[in-house]
Amino acid sequence: MKMGEKIPSSYESREFLWIRRIRETMGEARHGGIGIGDDAAFLPEGLLWTTDAMVEGVHFLSSWPMDGVGYKSLASSASDIVAMGGFPLYALLTTGLPSSFQEKMYATFLHGFQRAMQDFGIALMGGDTVRSDALFFSVTVLGKPFSKPLLRSGAQVGDTIYVSGMLGTSALGLETLLRQEPKGKEQSSLVRAHLYPPCRIMMMQELVVSYTITAAIDCSDGFVADLDHIADESGVGYEIEITKLPVPEGPREDVPWGIPWRYALGGGEDYEIIFTSPDNLPSRVGGVAVTPVGKIVPQGRTLLWQGHPIEREKIPRGYTHF
Amino acid sequence: MKMGEKIPSSYESREFLWIRRIRETMGEARHGGIGIGDDAAFLPEGLLWTTDAMVEGVHFLSSWPMDGVGYKSLASSASDIVAMGGFPLYALLTTGLPSSFQEKMYATFLHGFQRAMQDFGIALMGGDTVRSDALFFSVTVLGKPFSKPLLRSGAQVGDTIYVSGMLGTSALGLETLLRQEPKGKEQSSLVRAHLYPPCRIMMMQELVVSYTITAAIDCSDGFVADLDHIADESGVGYEIEITKLPVPEGPREDVPWGIPWRYALGGGEDYEIIFTSPDNLPSRVGGVAVTPVGKIVPQGRTLLWQGHPIEREKIPRGYTHF
Repeated sequence: MKMGEKIPSSYESREFLWIRRIRETMGEARHGGIGIGDDAAFLPEGLLWTTDAMVEGVHFLSSWPMDGVGYKSLASSASDIVAMGGFPLYALLTTGLPSSFQEKMYATFLHGFQRAMQDFGIALMGGDTVRSDALFFSVTVLGKPFSKPLLRSGAQVGDTIYVSGMLGTSALGLETLLRQEPKGKEQSSLVRAHLYPPCRIMMMQELVVSYTITAAIDCSDGFVADLDHIADESGVGYEIEITKLPVPEGPREDVPWGIPWRYALGGGEDYEIIFTSPDNLPSRVGGVAVTPVGKIVPQGRTLLWQGHPIEREKIPRGYTHF
Repeated sequence: MKMGEKIPSSYESREFLWIRRIRETMGEARHGGIGIGDDAAFLPEGLLWTTDAMVEGVHFLSSWPMDGVGYKSLASSASDIVAMGGFPLYALLTTGLPSSFQEKMYATFLHGFQRAMQDFGIALMGGDTVRSDALFFSVTVLGKPFSKPLLRSGAQVGDTIYVSGMLGTSALGLETLLRQEPKGKEQSSLVRAHLYPPCRIMMMQELVVSYTITAAIDCSDGFVADLDHIADESGVGYEIEITKLPVPEGPREDVPWGIPWRYALGGGEDYEIIFTSPDNLPSRVGGVAVTPVGKIVPQGRTLLWQGHPIEREKIPRGYTHF
């Protein structure tokens, strides 16, 4: 696909088709663990396990600051562990390197990767380095739940739906990256939100220790798409008031498919946590803003704009990748 | 590189340069585990952890039987766990799929992957599927040691050097694959040795339960290269009688760099286990032939041909990849 294009539904179907093919061929996970289908696998040994790959031309461009690509490649996997109610511990890094890729760029990538290791308390335990026509990074992370793992399937009717931090900044940052000249790329806070996403470890610890959290997911595909995963797995519906979504300051068109709302609803890669709870939470948990944006209902997936239901189809989706 | 070429030392240096760069940037593994540098990482949680990637055009061709590529992609990672004295338990599979890759070929790949899962008792716990211009498979495996992990660093002067199964068949199979027409590819036992490598789980269990094993490594880079890793990490030398190496039946030139000896010495990807022990082992362990091929000495790396030292430089190296 060309850069800047929205993901066509045909591609989405194709990726889901591969995943369905894997599930059909492999069957359910054995050994008593929770396998394919949540953010991370939960192993009988009590560990959480996940992997994420980033490919040049699909998830990033080699003209971008490689420090940020390195940071993000670890943050996105670590975020899956946090979304399961845990903290990351160890990582493996596999790199596919084209002959054209400069050693200096790789050093910059590793610098960013290492910053993320320090920020999130992760140890690099190994990996693999192979030649490849396509530059890619595949990161695998092991972690542990703070208590028991949070699944997508636990949301209960009546629960409040919360989201941490801000939504849409990453997608706005991606648009900036795709428009800007290389030299300006490090400057915008939106670009930083895209390349240096958060990993809400402290917030999650306080959430699971002090409150009842019924379901969680990290916002990687886009708010609506990820909330749909919770609804799918929990067998429930939801009602969201769009104007309650925490969005960045800046220019705005006050219609549900205007700026910044469409980025918040469909953008993805914010790596904030969407979670459900029967509790009334304070406005900040573990130093992070936590915003109630709607509630779990028995069925139906309703998006409200100032109290009025809107047609979901009007929300553009999928600013995540080119 | 072009197919069929030997790996030039310049490329070897380049890959080692990347790995050195990672080590320099990241420092030593933290959290008390054994990190980068052995076949697998040993985690404080008592688990063994490893990852391997295969890229089209580098490690395999899309014209090859994809069932075998699927089988091998899991076997090669599982073998790293066995070489550490353990058994594999769980896997994650990350796939980079070009738009040209047919669903039917992917189904065939998954079929082979699943056969390896069944053969080795491994559960698939998740993974990632991404678009990529280069077709690649990245496999991560977690396992457990039968008792304590076997390292490359434990070889003692006076130990006998053993090797399981046969050496050189995989490299001979690779040559056959590169020469043959597609339709003949499934037929040769050498090709099968390349695409369906062994994973010596039962042998390893009996070895660590019944005998003293001081060091082990799986034969992936080539016998001499892998034995060098043991010598490097253990701070010892070795003496090998080439004619004792277990090689396949067939045409042979009885010189140390003739067929099949050069494939046994330098071929790689046999995924047999090279290990050291002070014990006199029976000729079969866990149903697998186990052959004494030399001994650990204080220093020097000597290859003997019928008792006479030969010049190492005459041994062609690196039939592993194109």
